[in-house]
Amino acid sequence: MSKTSEGPRIAIHGLGAMGLDIIRILHRRRANIVAGIVRPGSDKEGRRLGELAGVPGLAVTARGDAARALREARPDIVIVTVSTYLDDTQYEVFSTAVKAGADVVTLAEEMLHPFATDSRLARDLDALAKDHRVTVTGTGHQDAYWVNLVSVLAGSTHDLGGVSGRLSWNVDDFGPVLAQLQRVGTTTEEFAHWLTAVERKPTFTYYALHTLADVIGLTPRGPAESITEPVIAQRDTYCKTLGATVERGRLLGYTDTDTLHTKEGVTLSVSSQGKVYEEHETDFNEWRLTDSEGNPTLHLRNSDLKTAHTTCATLVNRIPDVIAARPGIVSIEELPQLRYWTELHHG
Amino acid sequence: MSKTSEGPRIAIHGLGAMGLDIIRILHRRRANIVAGIVRPGSDKEGRRLGELAGVPGLAVTARGDAARALREARPDIVIVTVSTYLDDTQYEVFSTAVKAGADVVTLAEEMLHPFATDSRLARDLDALAKDHRVTVTGTGHQDAYWVNLVSVLAGSTHDLGGVSGRLSWNVDDFGPVLAQLQRVGTTTEEFAHWLTAVERKPTFTYYALHTLADVIGLTPRGPAESITEPVIAQRDTYCKTLGATVERGRLLGYTDTDTLHTKEGVTLSVSSQGKVYEEHETDFNEWRLTDSEGNPTLHLRNSDLKTAHTTCATLVNRIPDVIAARPGIVSIEELPQLRYWTELHHG
Repeated sequence: MSKTSEGPRIAIHGLGAMGLDIIRILHRRRANIVAGIVRPGSDKEGRRLGELAGVPGLAVTARGDAARALREARPDIVIVTVSTYLDDTQYEVFSTAVKAGADVVTLAEEMLHPFATDSRLARDLDALAKDHRVTVTGTGHQDAYWVNLVSVLAGSTHDLGGVSGRLSWNVDDFGPVLAQLQRVGTTTEEFAHWLTAVERKPTFTYYALHTLADVIGLTPRGPAESITEPVIAQRDTYCKTLGATVERGRLLGYTDTDTLHTKEGVTLSVSSQGKVYEEHETDFNEWRLTDSEGNPTLHLRNSDLKTAHTTCATLVNRIPDVIAARPGIVSIEELPQLRYWTELHHG
Repeated sequence: MSKTSEGPRIAIHGLGAMGLDIIRILHRRRANIVAGIVRPGSDKEGRRLGELAGVPGLAVTARGDAARALREARPDIVIVTVSTYLDDTQYEVFSTAVKAGADVVTLAEEMLHPFATDSRLARDLDALAKDHRVTVTGTGHQDAYWVNLVSVLAGSTHDLGGVSGRLSWNVDDFGPVLAQLQRVGTTTEEFAHWLTAVERKPTFTYYALHTLADVIGLTPRGPAESITEPVIAQRDTYCKTLGATVERGRLLGYTDTDTLHTKEGVTLSVSSQGKVYEEHETDFNEWRLTDSEGNPTLHLRNSDLKTAHTTCATLVNRIPDVIAARPGIVSIEELPQLRYWTELHHG
């Protein structure tokens, strides 16, 4: 269409599977994409976003010089889809956007609730964002499916004793970085060694459970506890995103079960299976509530989900909320109720 | 427990099936119930709420003199579970509470969105509530299941073209007033005559669809359109709430299908079946989203629901929000996100 968008100026930092799906969603909504950023030296550097994402007419070029590209493009908001944790590399990505005066919305799972761990980088980033009068928010599939649908459901119960989730996602939908994090293709011995030898970072659901507790007004008695179990291939299974076959007996991925006890006596838990799927499998999201005596009360299920895609779509629908939010790191529990926007700008 | 509640002072006007379930929920949460009100001359007048609701130790007596009972009990909020529509009788109930300086939270379905029709009584009540600096809000099962869960789900889609719901509730759970409204036991001829001869009031889902449109930021092109179809008994079926058998060939209830077209091109519809259940049936709530080309995108289902009970529990969880809201008629789209409250008072 020839109509020019008057919405926010949007940059995307990270042009992997997630970044490119977000570009397709933004393009369909006629959003105003002004910059695309990749690692310096990436083979995507210099290529057009439209070509990379398979959408016509998007002539913006992927650039490796983030600070300069943002200075020139003057985005209102930068979408960051680089990695999971708030480490030094990711801090650099966020702070470059913040220093350019742009809000940040990200899929980085730790950013859903960066204060759920004692994070110096989170405190520094919060101060930097306040200095520059911009907002930094983490969102994604969790926002809708692991937090807000669950909390609204709990708002219809007479007596909340427990909240228990079960969900599954396909490693093949998220690109090779996540496949490696899910230990796809490793042996059970390698996995057992990794579990004991490595100082593991918190799971994705760790951050979601702490956020859910906040949204329901519950006070954690301590950090969520995790149990991790391997999911073993019963037959040779091809992993598309790694371009390799996982041999029978090796790991398709693993299941994390996190449990959070609260001072109010409500127990929150979620069991999240991330693995390479076989042909017939699809994502689901399922939650059950119990009363304080353990009796089942309420149930919610989303079937045939496309978790990778809802992650991207949820982020896009949070853009107006993040632009309207106060400066600093703002977690989703402070944002208005998640909703669909026919236009990405308020009013 | 001997601990005295410090929560809001709560009165209940209407001690039918819904009012008594609400009393049981409030009692369990150790809420401060200060008055119960029934129709003057009701056989419940003078009886204790604890005895009526089957909970021990609740000595408050049901009274027929609403104005005086409220003046004496000084409730912060009055829960109204009397009937569906904002007619003259219901206006009298609300205005008595408002004049006593109490907020009002009600299950009256029209009050979910009383401005969805051109209602003089709603304008009068809004002005009266503002004069007395109190809030009047309609809530219930719809709040969670037909509006807010659906809108949060839509917040995770990339392209919203249609929203379509399907749900079922058991007339036997709601008492004889609703059973008669659902035409239980009438013949198909009587039903057909009623449909053509009677000026029907809007359906329950009519108000929910208009609220859902508001919450998603959509502008109706006109009022929602309704189609009503009878549900015929395939065999003699006992209706508990009427204490009578519905003969084969007569109505167990009916299904309303409402459709709302919006200026943004998104179509909202919901098909609501309210009937006398047979042995094996349970309530469900199911929603499907489609994109603007009609392709299915997202799905949500709640199985084995107890709609009558979630109606009551949702109302109880809205008490803190209504107490904190601005004066006047405040629809749920203005309230914070529905959530569970371990304590019914803020802070």
